[in-house]
Amino acid sequence: MMHALQLLAPLGGDPEVEGLLSADAHVRAMLDVEVALAEAQAALGVIPAHVTSAIRAAACDEPFELAPLAEEAARAGNVAIPLVNALTARVARISSEAAGYVHWGATSQDVIDTAVVLQLRGAVRVVSRRLAGAAAAAATHARRHATTLMPGRTWLQHAVPITFGLKAAGWLDALNRSADGLDDALAGASVVQFGGAAGTLAALGPHGDAVASALAERLGLVAPDMPWHAHRDRLARLAGALGVVAGTLGKIARDTALMGQAEVGEVAERSDPGRGGSSTMPQKQNPIDASVALAAATRAPGLVATLLAAMSQEHERGLGGWQAEWATMPVLVALTAGAARAVASLLEGLEVNVARMRANVDATGLLTAEAVTVALAPALGRREAYQRVARAARLAREQGRPLARVLADDESVMRTLGEDGIAAACAPEGCLGMTRVFVERVLARHDARLTGRRTRERGPLCGPGRDSVV
Amino acid sequence: MMHALQLLAPLGGDPEVEGLLSADAHVRAMLDVEVALAEAQAALGVIPAHVTSAIRAAACDEPFELAPLAEEAARAGNVAIPLVNALTARVARISSEAAGYVHWGATSQDVIDTAVVLQLRGAVRVVSRRLAGAAAAAATHARRHATTLMPGRTWLQHAVPITFGLKAAGWLDALNRSADGLDDALAGASVVQFGGAAGTLAALGPHGDAVASALAERLGLVAPDMPWHAHRDRLARLAGALGVVAGTLGKIARDTALMGQAEVGEVAERSDPGRGGSSTMPQKQNPIDASVALAAATRAPGLVATLLAAMSQEHERGLGGWQAEWATMPVLVALTAGAARAVASLLEGLEVNVARMRANVDATGLLTAEAVTVALAPALGRREAYQRVARAARLAREQGRPLARVLADDESVMRTLGEDGIAAACAPEGCLGMTRVFVERVLARHDARLTGRRTRERGPLCGPGRDSVV
Amino acid sequence: MMHALQLLAPLGGDPEVEGLLSADAHVRAMLDVEVALAEAQAALGVIPAHVTSAIRAAACDEPFELAPLAEEAARAGNVAIPLVNALTARVARISSEAAGYVHWGATSQDVIDTAVVLQLRGAVRVVSRRLAGAAAAAATHARRHATTLMPGRTWLQHAVPITFGLKAAGWLDALNRSADGLDDALAGASVVQFGGAAGTLAALGPHGDAVASALAERLGLVAPDMPWHAHRDRLARLAGALGVVAGTLGKIARDTALMGQAEVGEVAERSDPGRGGSSTMPQKQNPIDASVALAAATRAPGLVATLLAAMSQEHERGLGGWQAEWATMPVLVALTAGAARAVASLLEGLEVNVARMRANVDATGLLTAEAVTVALAPALGRREAYQRVARAARLAREQGRPLARVLADDESVMRTLGEDGIAAACAPEGCLGMTRVFVERVLARHDARLTGRRTRERGPLCGPGRDSVV
Amino acid sequence: MMHALQLLAPLGGDPEVEGLLSADAHVRAMLDVEVALAEAQAALGVIPAHVTSAIRAAACDEPFELAPLAEEAARAGNVAIPLVNALTARVARISSEAAGYVHWGATSQDVIDTAVVLQLRGAVRVVSRRLAGAAAAAATHARRHATTLMPGRTWLQHAVPITFGLKAAGWLDALNRSADGLDDALAGASVVQFGGAAGTLAALGPHGDAVASALAERLGLVAPDMPWHAHRDRLARLAGALGVVAGTLGKIARDTALMGQAEVGEVAERSDPGRGGSSTMPQKQNPIDASVALAAATRAPGLVATLLAAMSQEHERGLGGWQAEWATMPVLVALTAGAARAVASLLEGLEVNVARMRANVDATGLLTAEAVTVALAPALGRREAYQRVARAARLAREQGRPLARVLADDESVMRTLGEDGIAAACAPEGCLGMTRVFVERVLARHDARLTGRRTRERGPLCGPGRDSVV
Repeated sequence: MMHALQLLAPLGGDPEVEGLLSADAHVRAMLDVEVALAEAQAALGVIPAHVTSAIRAAACDEPFELAPLAEEAARAGNVAIPLVNALTARVARISSEAAGYVHWGATSQDVIDTAVVLQLRGAVRVVSRRLAGAAAAAATHARRHATTLMPGRTWLQHAVPITFGLKAAGWLDALNRSADGLDDALAGASVVQFGGAAGTLAALGPHGDAVASALAERLGLVAPDMPWHAHRDRLARLAGALGVVAGTLGKIARDTALMGQAEVGEVAERSDPGRGGSSTMPQKQNPIDASVALAAATRAPGLVATLLAAMSQEHERGLGGWQAEWATMPVLVALTAGAARAVASLLEGLEVNVARMRANVDATGLLTAEAVTVALAPALGRREAYQRVARAARLAREQGRPLARVLADDESVMRTLGEDGIAAACAPEGCLGMTRVFVERVLARHDARLTGRRTRERGPLCGPGRDSVV
Repeated sequence: MMHALQLLAPLGGDPEVEGLLSADAHVRAMLDVEVALAEAQAALGVIPAHVTSAIRAAACDEPFELAPLAEEAARAGNVAIPLVNALTARVARISSEAAGYVHWGATSQDVIDTAVVLQLRGAVRVVSRRLAGAAAAAATHARRHATTLMPGRTWLQHAVPITFGLKAAGWLDALNRSADGLDDALAGASVVQFGGAAGTLAALGPHGDAVASALAERLGLVAPDMPWHAHRDRLARLAGALGVVAGTLGKIARDTALMGQAEVGEVAERSDPGRGGSSTMPQKQNPIDASVALAAATRAPGLVATLLAAMSQEHERGLGGWQAEWATMPVLVALTAGAARAVASLLEGLEVNVARMRANVDATGLLTAEAVTVALAPALGRREAYQRVARAARLAREQGRPLARVLADDESVMRTLGEDGIAAACAPEGCLGMTRVFVERVLARHDARLTGRRTRERGPLCGPGRDSVV
Repeated sequence: MMHALQLLAPLGGDPEVEGLLSADAHVRAMLDVEVALAEAQAALGVIPAHVTSAIRAAACDEPFELAPLAEEAARAGNVAIPLVNALTARVARISSEAAGYVHWGATSQDVIDTAVVLQLRGAVRVVSRRLAGAAAAAATHARRHATTLMPGRTWLQHAVPITFGLKAAGWLDALNRSADGLDDALAGASVVQFGGAAGTLAALGPHGDAVASALAERLGLVAPDMPWHAHRDRLARLAGALGVVAGTLGKIARDTALMGQAEVGEVAERSDPGRGGSSTMPQKQNPIDASVALAAATRAPGLVATLLAAMSQEHERGLGGWQAEWATMPVLVALTAGAARAVASLLEGLEVNVARMRANVDATGLLTAEAVTVALAPALGRREAYQRVARAARLAREQGRPLARVLADDESVMRTLGEDGIAAACAPEGCLGMTRVFVERVLARHDARLTGRRTRERGPLCGPGRDSVV
Repeated sequence: MMHALQLLAPLGGDPEVEGLLSADAHVRAMLDVEVALAEAQAALGVIPAHVTSAIRAAACDEPFELAPLAEEAARAGNVAIPLVNALTARVARISSEAAGYVHWGATSQDVIDTAVVLQLRGAVRVVSRRLAGAAAAAATHARRHATTLMPGRTWLQHAVPITFGLKAAGWLDALNRSADGLDDALAGASVVQFGGAAGTLAALGPHGDAVASALAERLGLVAPDMPWHAHRDRLARLAGALGVVAGTLGKIARDTALMGQAEVGEVAERSDPGRGGSSTMPQKQNPIDASVALAAATRAPGLVATLLAAMSQEHERGLGGWQAEWATMPVLVALTAGAARAVASLLEGLEVNVARMRANVDATGLLTAEAVTVALAPALGRREAYQRVARAARLAREQGRPLARVLADDESVMRTLGEDGIAAACAPEGCLGMTRVFVERVLARHDARLTGRRTRERGPLCGPGRDSVV
């Protein structure tokens, strides 16, 4: 039986991230933690060195069947207990001595939380990579269209002229900032969980702290000052950062979807054959990428709220709050990844209609009303200038005439600016202000960020790259 | 690859509901809609009668592979388009004429929305059934423990005596009310979606409305006044009702979890062997059912918020909002079902420690402070009575003496009530007020509800019971 | 000092509702409850009949200062305690005997909850009235524009032709349905709270239940089977209904805001002088009403989620959950009222540009692609028809030619339909399907609703109309 | 008329923060922005230097009436427009020339957003200060009770022994981490907004960027690479950080509320006379501080979700999303401040009952079950050890006997450990593992943090400290 979310995963998710967050990957990550734990303890002499090979073999040689684990978890209350049981049984078939050292000193939550952190690390890095792709595409648009005129719009109304490059620079700026916030939050959350039954590591006697450090090191995670079973702020912060990313992506998708309306026609999503069609309307090219990102931006806030609401966890390990995280965090990460992938695709494939942008600027002629006001203000005072232009704009709209013509009928305006002055003030190219400066500055920071960026990639313990880690 | 939520489903969900909301069931429901549509149209002479057998055979004889549908949905933007394509291809292998009539006049959203409604109808009925089970168990406790004394607690502090029966009656009352709200909302949402490309049914010429009615009838759904592609209030209301159910279940779970604390010891969840154990602490019996319901109550609000936030759908069919529903509604229903199942199990298996309840009442002696105040008020005035008892309560706490003793030291109190009067006022049995009346009234309404209840069950179109429907 | 929300109230709220939900009104409602309680108890002989006049006089003759109540509430934990203290002190100045009977048998939560219910009843009725205003305006548009052609849009893209009347009928339908849901939820929540310290009414001995009934009757509320201090489902359901209303209003606002974009130009909000202007752009007419409704639709889901999350209240009266409601419910009601008022204003003042709607239909020519496909399908089969029209649509877009012309170049199409057939299929008037039927049916139900509707208005206890109530 | 939230402010809020977020303060901050803008422009020669004194005088000498601004905002769509109008009128009375330079080159959103940033900076710093107070109190408990035994609890059940110092260290750790996250987010959000009509600063010609920098410097804010009118990620991140703070505070409040239950009795909130009493129950001492923090933790997630949901703002300045922030952000900050204040008060006044903690440890005897298992494991193997202790624990519970006694009946256990070994394993002092190390490490980091901390305080422009800023 396929889960409802799996049917939707190729559309709204990200195949790579879906893999990293699958049940299989979760179990894999828990096993990685168990192996790393045994090896850390063996290296410290806490458990006999010779038992680790049996534990590693049992954990890594063959995958565990998931359905029985899921069934048994319903009785146990979490999935780590049946997994540890199953692992122990397998180890026992190799060495009954080794079986006694599986999961030594750990509690279920240690294994689940640390596994989640490992999975998040992998998955969030993919989100970062997708965001970098989206940023690269936005940078290309910003650079290419630094001077491509289009209407600036506020309150969904025409405001003053901008360039498409400026809009793309705004996207780029927000993408990079959101990605930085995500990276910071991930770094803060890349912390091992290892506290034993109630956060004292009592079962390990004097060795607890050394084991915690060694385990963290083996997994490439930070060892915290103390366990954090019931203090979920690190994960909640990461959730917030994902929510911010989803919001930024949603904003970009909303912009492009609005620009792609038939009457606006300034951009279109890539039109591969069979993409975004309708079952009934042959002319349709639905903006699928935008729909994915907007759906994610609609869904993320509620999931972030869940993770914040789950924070009031009781005493040393909570009841209900922790459990609420299990099904929420992977969904939040997957939808953010899907949105990042969709926006990268959207921006990479975006068909930009420069002519239509210019036509939209010229169609109303009203985008330069502010510029005319500014031109008139020194002579007439700002207030009178504003009122005269407002009247002209109203007439222009009512009569369907260009603003410049209507202004020419106003004696006071003509006296002040003359025909040439009016024409100059009404030229959209002339009223772009700092547009160029902003675009260049954002691009410069983007370029610097690309150079200075370093990411330390670490593979899973039992995957192809594991040797370099353990 | 198993989805993360599938690993958690046996624990936090409900196997029956998980089945009804699976990807398989979704595709099945969409095919049911296509078959019903063809047969409705054939019955009305809109399409040739002889083509329906090919459509039914293609839709029902053999399940469709889901993975390719999911893959193709990523290009198409929704899962109905590839399904209709696959169905059409199959039909064409039987009859090329019939292939031309598949999905006739419908749009993807018609099929997806109606399928969702069908799935919700089935799944929400299971939730109702689980709630009925929980209510039955609560009623048993209310009846059995109508006079079982225990501390009433407010602000997590001892207040006045109540009975466990009263507490259970409160649960029962809320369960039934929440279930009624759910049933009403489900009835309101059991509406067919059929509007064609943009809600005009234009492709069906003059037949559109008749087809809509016939389709609704075949599926056992209501035919609405007009299509509701971008008006999602019915589903949002259902989501709200599910959120209320989850909240009610969470409240019950919180109560029992608190009553089950070691120091309180008034109840315990069923202690089947291997249930709720810890991987490290042999004495542990974790309240698993409560954790499931509390996790659901933590998760539901964010998901309801998502469905409300998704309501602002653009024009005739929206961008992003509709898509946000897809992965949210099934998760919300599944967790509510899981919580209802858990609370039913919790209440059915609840071990009630009557002696401990009584001991907790007697331990502080302060639960009767209000009763003493009421007894003193006629003679001393309410304010003075209150102040004297407050002082006595403070002394009782500080000195660890029973309230009755401390009160006996207060001349004014002794003069008013005498030793017997103090003893009478301090007897918890004597200050239960309307407890009995409330319990009986709630039980009476519960009994009446059981009698008056009628539910019309309808099976899926292609399942075992389909003949009676189509 | 003015609260931040008060500065925003005239813009985003509703003056009438803001008044009904003010701190003053809350205190007034609590006093109404105290007066009604005393009078109910006196009528039943539970307290002396002659004390009520002092209580009424103290409660009603002069307002209480709010700032000291607020200050004292910080120590007491809620605002009812200092209010009861202040009331008692005032009553004592009239009659020390009467002072002993203030708040007799009640707990703070009884007074606060019942006061909230009274305020909600008043405020939600205003919301209903605003919704009725919005519905009336929508009905007018639906009637007037039943045949006004405009583009139907799905996924923010042109789909098939509709009429503006159909769109308005969809709004009307959803408004009435959402209002019905709100009315139902309000009826369900119009329940008195009266349970005493922990829901047993112990302090009233045998009279508790009779007092509860009499109190409910006096306030025009329902007396529940038992108190509901920690069972908040009725209020949570009301919150959900408000959230649905806000969502419906947001959908309407989004539609009109999109239709009002410069390039679309189909509608505009009323353009009163000075309304929606910009401080810098003289041409601006910002859609203020839409912004109010969209902001409300953005804010409501989070507030509904809060009220659902607050439901898990501990034992007989909770800690934190109840308190979370206090500042949430009035904000939710106020924003919904403000949104309803804004949408009523929006729809009443909406300037509809019929010519522009028609021009937008004609501009792309592609809205009839489905109609052409349907016309071709009988001869060519649906699949080939679809593919031929899809190709024509692509060419039409690329070459900027009308679809009809491009189709005429396709021999197969010409052979099938002929020039006249193509013209007929491409006439938007010809492909409106059930539009007329839907509009009329929605209007008929609206008219029936207006006739059948009856609302029982009840005034506040101490306001001008109080004599008729008490 | 007082707003409902104002009545609740002394209880649930923070008086200092309520002041900083009031409508008065918002208007004040907007005026500060206008003054700083004029002075920055004058310093750069963009406007005549001599006009600034009139603008400063008009803005600072006398407060503006708020009610008319609120009324007018309803027509204008925001509160900056009427304020600029009112300011301009006042300036005009001093100098008509100066009036022409008010708000030069700015748009309403520039002024509102920058004012909000200034207010947030002030208010969030108060939150940080409250958190520092709470942390100091937690540190005191951690230090004082480093070895005070109490039950560690997981899933609301007894787990293994911990110390109260460890619990307090966990609170301290989370408080400091949450405060750091808040400080970082505030730093990131302390950015001026200055973009003019649509983010190009077109009205200022070549001077735009220099003015933006000078304005930022005057206000002590960062000048961003480009305006961020429709990119709200910085504020959303700050909202997320506030949500994390509220969650951490809620966790602490939940712990103490649970520890304060009658049957647990380990702590109590300060018992000042008249604090946390009940109107009916003289013995009551309700945990008010905990209720405030728990209510905040319940409310914050929905408000954070709102701010995330508001991020998809259209084009250069959005419709609905921006407006949704106005009433949400101040409420979120105020409740977080109130929660921080409450938890500081709670921890400072917390009455700790060391004897009761120890008694709770001894009462069940089961907390050492894990320790016994660990002691037995080397000899019996972990699995058998676990099973034997589990059986003993079950018997101990059923028979109400101490675990040590029951264990002594088990021959295999006796043989392995002997009576002394059992006694040693069952001594809670002996199984605290790393408790001491964790407490000390957390305290050491806390001490280091206190030393290294530096905050740059900046006053409001027109308040007492303004001279040092402007």
